[in-house]
Amino acid sequence: MARPVTAAAPAPSARWWRAGVVQAVSPPGVIDLGPGYLEPGLLPVDTVLPLYAEALTEFGPAALGYGANAGADPLRVLLADRHGCTAEEVMVTAGTSQALALLCTALGRPGRSVVVERTCYDLARGIMTDHGLRVREAAADGEGVRPDALDQALSRSTDAAFVYLTPTFHNPTGTVAGTPRRRELLAVAARHGVPIVEDDAYAELNLDGTGPPPSLAALAGGRGVIRLGSFAKTLGPGLRLGWLQAEPDLVSTLAHRGQLVSGGGLNHLTSLAVTMLMRDGRYDQRLSWLRGQLRLRRDALVAALRAGLGDEVAVARPAGGFFLWLAFHPRLGEASIAAAAARAGVEVARGSRFGTTTGTHVRLAYSFHPPDRLAEAAARLALAWRNEDPLR
Amino acid sequence: MARPVTAAAPAPSARWWRAGVVQAVSPPGVIDLGPGYLEPGLLPVDTVLPLYAEALTEFGPAALGYGANAGADPLRVLLADRHGCTAEEVMVTAGTSQALALLCTALGRPGRSVVVERTCYDLARGIMTDHGLRVREAAADGEGVRPDALDQALSRSTDAAFVYLTPTFHNPTGTVAGTPRRRELLAVAARHGVPIVEDDAYAELNLDGTGPPPSLAALAGGRGVIRLGSFAKTLGPGLRLGWLQAEPDLVSTLAHRGQLVSGGGLNHLTSLAVTMLMRDGRYDQRLSWLRGQLRLRRDALVAALRAGLGDEVAVARPAGGFFLWLAFHPRLGEASIAAAAARAGVEVARGSRFGTTTGTHVRLAYSFHPPDRLAEAAARLALAWRNEDPLR
Repeated sequence: MARPVTAAAPAPSARWWRAGVVQAVSPPGVIDLGPGYLEPGLLPVDTVLPLYAEALTEFGPAALGYGANAGADPLRVLLADRHGCTAEEVMVTAGTSQALALLCTALGRPGRSVVVERTCYDLARGIMTDHGLRVREAAADGEGVRPDALDQALSRSTDAAFVYLTPTFHNPTGTVAGTPRRRELLAVAARHGVPIVEDDAYAELNLDGTGPPPSLAALAGGRGVIRLGSFAKTLGPGLRLGWLQAEPDLVSTLAHRGQLVSGGGLNHLTSLAVTMLMRDGRYDQRLSWLRGQLRLRRDALVAALRAGLGDEVAVARPAGGFFLWLAFHPRLGEASIAAAAARAGVEVARGSRFGTTTGTHVRLAYSFHPPDRLAEAAARLALAWRNEDPLR
Repeated sequence: MARPVTAAAPAPSARWWRAGVVQAVSPPGVIDLGPGYLEPGLLPVDTVLPLYAEALTEFGPAALGYGANAGADPLRVLLADRHGCTAEEVMVTAGTSQALALLCTALGRPGRSVVVERTCYDLARGIMTDHGLRVREAAADGEGVRPDALDQALSRSTDAAFVYLTPTFHNPTGTVAGTPRRRELLAVAARHGVPIVEDDAYAELNLDGTGPPPSLAALAGGRGVIRLGSFAKTLGPGLRLGWLQAEPDLVSTLAHRGQLVSGGGLNHLTSLAVTMLMRDGRYDQRLSWLRGQLRLRRDALVAALRAGLGDEVAVARPAGGFFLWLAFHPRLGEASIAAAAARAGVEVARGSRFGTTTGTHVRLAYSFHPPDRLAEAAARLALAWRNEDPLR
């Protein structure tokens, strides 16, 4: 499916996995569990290789013209069929980050507020503050944000442009909100008349069983929810392709923004390349393979951490997504946890980066390394953390 | 180079040149001189066909990962060499519209103003107002905006975020500012301490002689100017690829916006595909061919209009770009000019769309039809307009 890139047998192209071409590269010898990336060997080079030529052959010059503002119909129809909505509710985007930026200006105005889970994807927060929005937090529990906390936050924020939530395979905590919780959250937001932006980037990466509960968008019948989907986690972020599901009127409003009218669809040719992949089952084959690969990685990291740490640190197994979320004893701060890891050659992401105020959490990504490297990382971490007093 | 799509011999893919896939489609029988598009037959299907596979073979998984925030070095270096600056001054964008949206939030804030030429690209204006910026106009003459008018506008707009100018092959007027005018404009903006955003989308589409004067960015040594480049007019808008040239500090600031840190480079895989095209001369071959094709079209439309209209309407021949800008006698308003054209089966763009207040101008694009269709359009227009009283 994809060519592996390892130190032992580098592909000729491996030399390009370096800063200046890709976003971040770890120093040699370091096992980086920080970024929410797919490992190079999980990126579908061979799968994508023929797609653009296929799209250009199929669509001809129409693949290179100004694409329809809301995205090309063939992909909108495929996405609508896949996600149980109408094509008029789908807009093709250039990824979740771009979609969020678009929503921040279309729904928000500097000075207005947005309500987020206290612990949430840090860079979504960055996009919002870049647009002058004031971020207000609502407390969460093991199913994500609490309805009463959301209600309080919205009562205090009468100017809220939207609520930003990740109910499925939450980044960084890995939690999943159950259906009753989802319905409660929808009711609270509807009562306040504030739309929910549902970040569903990891929704298709369920690793166990039948997958997560229905999306907020599905439960709400598409009303009052803007669901953001992405191909960055299932195919590759370099494609810069995603989609959103929203009420047809909002899709139309977004499609009439100057940026869209001027430039057309946000990533037209690539959207048609991915159309080729989705319409004949190759996307589902890819997803099935990827889920298996991620399952191997998650299980390798969980097992090795549990073996190394015993009962002293609870290692929960997330049902999907990319991340483990570890909680340490309060006597041990995240700074010393991360520093001990770094001394052992393992990078981790500190919880405070995501807004967590306990100072006792770190996030480990199991997506960016093969299972044997994850087991090695876990052994290093267990040794390093066991040497820290409060673990004992 | 590119497969022609005509009614006479439609390519199998021609059926996709329709609304829902591309942005706008004219009714059958109408010759649409409205949009600033490349004709389907000028879009480089065969040229682009191998590029993505080449890029994936060359760069491997690095082509599918999160791209470097400011764009991949290989393309930044090629663009810097081409445009006489350093790679640190180049950022790869997802096209001019996206770059403008990014600049509106990074440099501006709702309520602040931006100064534009009174007659200018309407959708740039739309992007600015979408971001809450107040658009102030400066009057222009045959070389674009007048320095004294810019000075006045900036004196009245002490909160100006930037000045937006198109000094080369202006859309819609086709004018080119000479070097002395460019230096004057730079001096005025520098005196007010306001950066100029130089929209240079048409810069490489000179159709006569040696090309336009140096860009504002080149004349300013890169200081105080943000130059926007695009592949939408030279390759195809469906690629959604462009670039900007700015001071390294601003490039760094933009590359650290949440949207970039979160999503990486704005159109990573496509930027590497175009890298393959630029680095071995194929891009220059394409440009040379395209200039010849556009020259044929410009000359066909100008000659046929002059033959049909005689001396009654001055038809200036632009030195580059996509557009003719026609000025009619004040007794004949743009509404009746456009209505007469439409009755004859030709769509034109009214000057008021671009901010022109005289009510006597229309823009004709010669980029969207082959020469014989342009000659046919001109014959229809001449007949239609000659039937309007004030032309006689």
